[in-house]
Amino acid sequence: MIVSELTERELIARIRRQLPTAPDWMLVGIGDDAAVVAPERNRDEVLTVDALVEGIHFDRAFVPPDAIGHRALAVNLSDLAAMGATPRLALLSMVLPAAFQLDDFDRLVSGFVSLAARHRLHVAGGNLTRSPGPLVLDVTVLGSVKRRQALTRSGASPGDELYVSGTLGAAAAGLEMLRAAADPTTDAAATNGASIDRYLRPEPRVRLGVLLSKNRAVTACMDLSDGLAEGVHQMAGASGVGAVVNADALPISAEARRWFDGRGIDAVAEALTAGDDYELLVAVHPRAARRFSRTIPHNEAQFTRVGTCTADGNIVIRRANEGADTEAGLPHAGYRHFR
Amino acid sequence: MIVSELTERELIARIRRQLPTAPDWMLVGIGDDAAVVAPERNRDEVLTVDALVEGIHFDRAFVPPDAIGHRALAVNLSDLAAMGATPRLALLSMVLPAAFQLDDFDRLVSGFVSLAARHRLHVAGGNLTRSPGPLVLDVTVLGSVKRRQALTRSGASPGDELYVSGTLGAAAAGLEMLRAAADPTTDAAATNGASIDRYLRPEPRVRLGVLLSKNRAVTACMDLSDGLAEGVHQMAGASGVGAVVNADALPISAEARRWFDGRGIDAVAEALTAGDDYELLVAVHPRAARRFSRTIPHNEAQFTRVGTCTADGNIVIRRANEGADTEAGLPHAGYRHFR
Repeated sequence: MIVSELTERELIARIRRQLPTAPDWMLVGIGDDAAVVAPERNRDEVLTVDALVEGIHFDRAFVPPDAIGHRALAVNLSDLAAMGATPRLALLSMVLPAAFQLDDFDRLVSGFVSLAARHRLHVAGGNLTRSPGPLVLDVTVLGSVKRRQALTRSGASPGDELYVSGTLGAAAAGLEMLRAAADPTTDAAATNGASIDRYLRPEPRVRLGVLLSKNRAVTACMDLSDGLAEGVHQMAGASGVGAVVNADALPISAEARRWFDGRGIDAVAEALTAGDDYELLVAVHPRAARRFSRTIPHNEAQFTRVGTCTADGNIVIRRANEGADTEAGLPHAGYRHFR
Repeated sequence: MIVSELTERELIARIRRQLPTAPDWMLVGIGDDAAVVAPERNRDEVLTVDALVEGIHFDRAFVPPDAIGHRALAVNLSDLAAMGATPRLALLSMVLPAAFQLDDFDRLVSGFVSLAARHRLHVAGGNLTRSPGPLVLDVTVLGSVKRRQALTRSGASPGDELYVSGTLGAAAAGLEMLRAAADPTTDAAATNGASIDRYLRPEPRVRLGVLLSKNRAVTACMDLSDGLAEGVHQMAGASGVGAVVNADALPISAEARRWFDGRGIDAVAEALTAGDDYELLVAVHPRAARRFSRTIPHNEAQFTRVGTCTADGNIVIRRANEGADTEAGLPHAGYRHFR
């Protein structure tokens, strides 16, 4: 059965059946012209929107429907995490090909709703429309943060240390594994494993972002949805500083390194540009470094120091090469045509 | 020049050049991972999202880019109007075909930004992505309304009178005029006029919605984006009442009536199903009818009484036919497959 055999109302009813009870601050939920919510006292609100487009951001040949729903929300939750915000509600706008399978629709919603539930995020509304084109999921999330305590990317100063949460490259390796497994001309066959799971169902650093907002040790924060290199460029640009990144310090996932090394691919270059890990990049004033490391529980995330902010405005990567350090401009995706 | 020759950053810069200065309650605007806004005291927040898809909701052959941008925002503003909310901010998510002309991009943004400025709505962020498919504009708006004074569609009682703002059918006639003019097999040629303007650049009833929320005379309110018949069904269903609609009372636009009559099309049927007028449907308790009519300035909108809520649960349309009234079930778009 395909979605266009149902009415919009029936499709909305299928979504609602998957949703938990609405919280009492949701004064008007799904079913009216708009949602009405009571704001929280003494908190600022954080809003962001991101779209996933089939054929650009995911390939339905090897990304199952629940992972599409999960990823569409994760990319937005990661933006909230970057601001230190606690998720509150989402609006889910789905642009569906007429022949989209109803079973896939249910599974997509299930992936979205499961991740939402784990972060106590409530679906307040959305939109459904058919399309002659590809599947598009456009998700808006609203979160909140204590007044004037939102993290931004613009607060770094020269001398601040740059840290990255977790590991880099696993999602990129996972995507390549899935592509290889779907390619009949290769004999690669891995369709599960930690890297693949990291690509399909990334865990946005929501709790970590909230902790960072509370402990006030970081001067700047952003997520790495465009990759570490681009992240450093953007944070440095917004903060008006330069930066040195130490290539040999990058916390590259061990599985990803083995995968890339085994194929003669430069794992450092991959880790610098990979955008699907959804880790955080933060800047920390040296005097706050001890407070920074002490207040992040180890079960939450490990941070790795990857570089330093500088006063000279240059953004470079340093790499040990046969005993001597070499420096080069950090590759920049900012010139890339828009995706 | 086409959009894919520019970087995402350059496209965002082109949007920002068209925006007015951000208000001081926008603590972090475009350019970070998310927007941060300070909420208003003693107000509830109203949120809605709507997508326009090329080939479904508009035809680029005869809808100019600025009208696409205008309409994408208007449909959302109309939802805020239905709740009695004052617009506050928008997030603009654009899914662009790679070959989309840069000039059309600028004009689309211009149509969006012009309507936003007239309603003091600020663009707080958005998303840009390319697509192998059609143009999609997905717009989220946030508005606010005095605490607990949001209008809903669920408050009507038996005996309440049903009123419609403005006139019906003009946008539908305008769309047909544009289609006819674009069709080489006809000799119709009108490409401007009041009906066409109504279709291309509808004026959502934002100020009217705010007035209705303030004067507390209406028991239910919704916009007519799915047409009057569907609106009556939805309001009656949400309120648990029946309704009688008087077909002969419908405020059909004079130009639309001439157009439909001249082509042997039933203007009443068109006025019942037309969804592009963006008028409001309200229910008013008879005792509040005088207050209702007195507090709406005549330059804002004329309301026309089109029916009454009933206790029996039936939803019917009454029509004078050779001296005798006939009653029939009100046509219902609720069974229609989703669009």
